[in-house]
Amino acid sequence: MAEAAGGERKIVVAVDESEESTYALTWCLTNLISSNFKDTLFLVHARSPPALYTGLDGSGYMLSSDTVATMEKYGNVVAESVMKKAQKICRDLAGDIRVDTRVEGGDARDVICQMVERLNADILVMGSHGYGLIKRTFLGSVSNHCAQNAKCPVMIVKKPKSPAS
Amino acid sequence: MAEAAGGERKIVVAVDESEESTYALTWCLTNLISSNFKDTLFLVHARSPPALYTGLDGSGYMLSSDTVATMEKYGNVVAESVMKKAQKICRDLAGDIRVDTRVEGGDARDVICQMVERLNADILVMGSHGYGLIKRTFLGSVSNHCAQNAKCPVMIVKKPKSPAS
Repeated sequence: MAEAAGGERKIVVAVDESEESTYALTWCLTNLISSNFKDTLFLVHARSPPALYTGLDGSGYMLSSDTVATMEKYGNVVAESVMKKAQKICRDLAGDIRVDTRVEGGDARDVICQMVERLNADILVMGSHGYGLIKRTFLGSVSNHCAQNAKCPVMIVKKPKSPAS
Repeated sequence: MAEAAGGERKIVVAVDESEESTYALTWCLTNLISSNFKDTLFLVHARSPPALYTGLDGSGYMLSSDTVATMEKYGNVVAESVMKKAQKICRDLAGDIRVDTRVEGGDARDVICQMVERLNADILVMGSHGYGLIKRTFLGSVSNHCAQNAKCPVMIVKKPKSPAS
């Protein structure tokens, strides 16, 4: 695992289309980014692979190649939109920070943990939910998985429900 | 949930006798504490309550009052030792930071989450393990529970096993 040697840190932020992910990124920029360090932010987005459109018993749906192509195109559009929004937030809140982006197809849990390892990241930041209720129910919480398996400290940021809650 | 308004933050660090907890505190002091903020560190330690010495089926062991008293005394000695060690680390790594301590009897999951809420903390920092293998197996991971239930962002810091891993 990487240490914050020489004041340079690689911070991976997992981003998706959820409000919680936006909140986690905002929180990171206002609370974690520090003038004490030379931080580089890596915005990482996991695009669902066609494999995730198979049935839960692994039997698979009979999807036409047109349908698969449409789904992949949709995944690319979502990824582009997520990244544009995330980059804008970075510019607005921390204009001078170095930002890099990574989009990979695959299960979010694997994509995020592998990216942390490949980049030798110092910190992983992510929302506690996101990635949809159904997927979470069947695959388990992405954040729990990453908190246990990512090879760096993990910051789990929950979006507050309301001031009264 | 508290926001980091006016640059003042309350950071709760869960401390116990594990090496991982020591590592999490050290990581917090070198990575999270920032001159951008006026941070106050709250070192929180959960002392196991007598209730945890009952059997797993709730039947309870027949413990003499002497045994209970000895266990409580042991809990106090551990708490004092944990806090002394944690305070020394704070002095050594961030001499000018404000540090407060809280020791409460109870299950670590409840003590930590309740303390976060009572203090209206901005960040909770903790190790991913600690609290003993047996308790973790039967009660579930303390860090998973806190990541899902604490009313603030949660930083889970794992002690790296070895440089090669």
